[in-house]
Amino acid sequence: MTESIDFYFDFASPYGFLACRKVGDLASTVGRKVNWRPFLIGAVYKAHGGAPLAHPLKRDYVFKDVFRRAKIDGVERMQTPANFPASSVPPSRLAYWVEREAPEEMGAFVEAAYKAFWIDGRDTADPNAALEAAESLGFDRDKAMAGAKCQAVKDRLREVTETALERGVFGSPFILIDGDPFWGGDRFADIEALYG
Amino acid sequence: MTESIDFYFDFASPYGFLACRKVGDLASTVGRKVNWRPFLIGAVYKAHGGAPLAHPLKRDYVFKDVFRRAKIDGVERMQTPANFPASSVPPSRLAYWVEREAPEEMGAFVEAAYKAFWIDGRDTADPNAALEAAESLGFDRDKAMAGAKCQAVKDRLREVTETALERGVFGSPFILIDGDPFWGGDRFADIEALYG
Repeated sequence: MTESIDFYFDFASPYGFLACRKVGDLASTVGRKVNWRPFLIGAVYKAHGGAPLAHPLKRDYVFKDVFRRAKIDGVERMQTPANFPASSVPPSRLAYWVEREAPEEMGAFVEAAYKAFWIDGRDTADPNAALEAAESLGFDRDKAMAGAKCQAVKDRLREVTETALERGVFGSPFILIDGDPFWGGDRFADIEALYG
Repeated sequence: MTESIDFYFDFASPYGFLACRKVGDLASTVGRKVNWRPFLIGAVYKAHGGAPLAHPLKRDYVFKDVFRRAKIDGVERMQTPANFPASSVPPSRLAYWVEREAPEEMGAFVEAAYKAFWIDGRDTADPNAALEAAESLGFDRDKAMAGAKCQAVKDRLREVTETALERGVFGSPFILIDGDPFWGGDRFADIEALYG
């Protein structure tokens, strides 16, 4: 069985978007597969206090930094989702429905949904944005809509989020590799240095 | 006149220590000189709220991450200073005395003092640690001790810290290059990509 890396992210996280584009290559480099783990970063703030980008100075910096980084990565036209920051429950649940339906498509769904938010500027809280991402991969919209509402899928997202907290995840993106924590897409080089 | 990069850091910052070892090479790569700008990160927390590494989960992670990074950088035996986190006023003032006495020695003093804290584990708040770093570079201890107490040096540290806040510096290390902000030693590659 191929070993894996656990890639935790919130769909409302811009650094998560940039990292999701590269985590597949990272996994190949270190000879592992990606476990896609969308979770709700809000649970971290609820559990530990604090708030994401509460400080206006830091928020301004982060957006400057992430758009600059996008250009270096060759990502043109990155933009902030409508209504940001909004709930990322709809795409997260839908991702876990995809995991049940067609696990091999989960990475493709993550990237398609992320693009809808951070390239097309769709609202993460709008269920239609996530559904259209699933449709673009050939999933049936009505089945997807119903699937995202089933209890097993809701439970799965809650369980992944709780497990993330238990494992010490406190940011997005966040990678666990053999229990070793790496916070941020800017730690990919370290992972390659240590596990490559 | 050679253009410069402003390198802001707090002597109590472990990422600042690792960055100080590499900022000279970064400056050469982008054809600039380094303006060494020790400042008091506590002023940021005072002005904007929050606290450094207040969150135990994040603090544990940061130390794991920074010691791991030290090994990748070839730094052996890095350790946390005694009494951490403590004031970094003594080395910061002494750095600005060095700036007045022998500005070309400022980078060497910064590195020597940083090593005393993060390699030898000396207390940042202990004036002897900083004085011995200055002595190791040939400075007279009594002159250095008196110099660090003069009003012009105290004012200089206060002024740099205030200017840092005005310029949007909120972490350590923090680089400003033509007004462009870069937070963290992990942004050196971005600076090279954009200014190299």
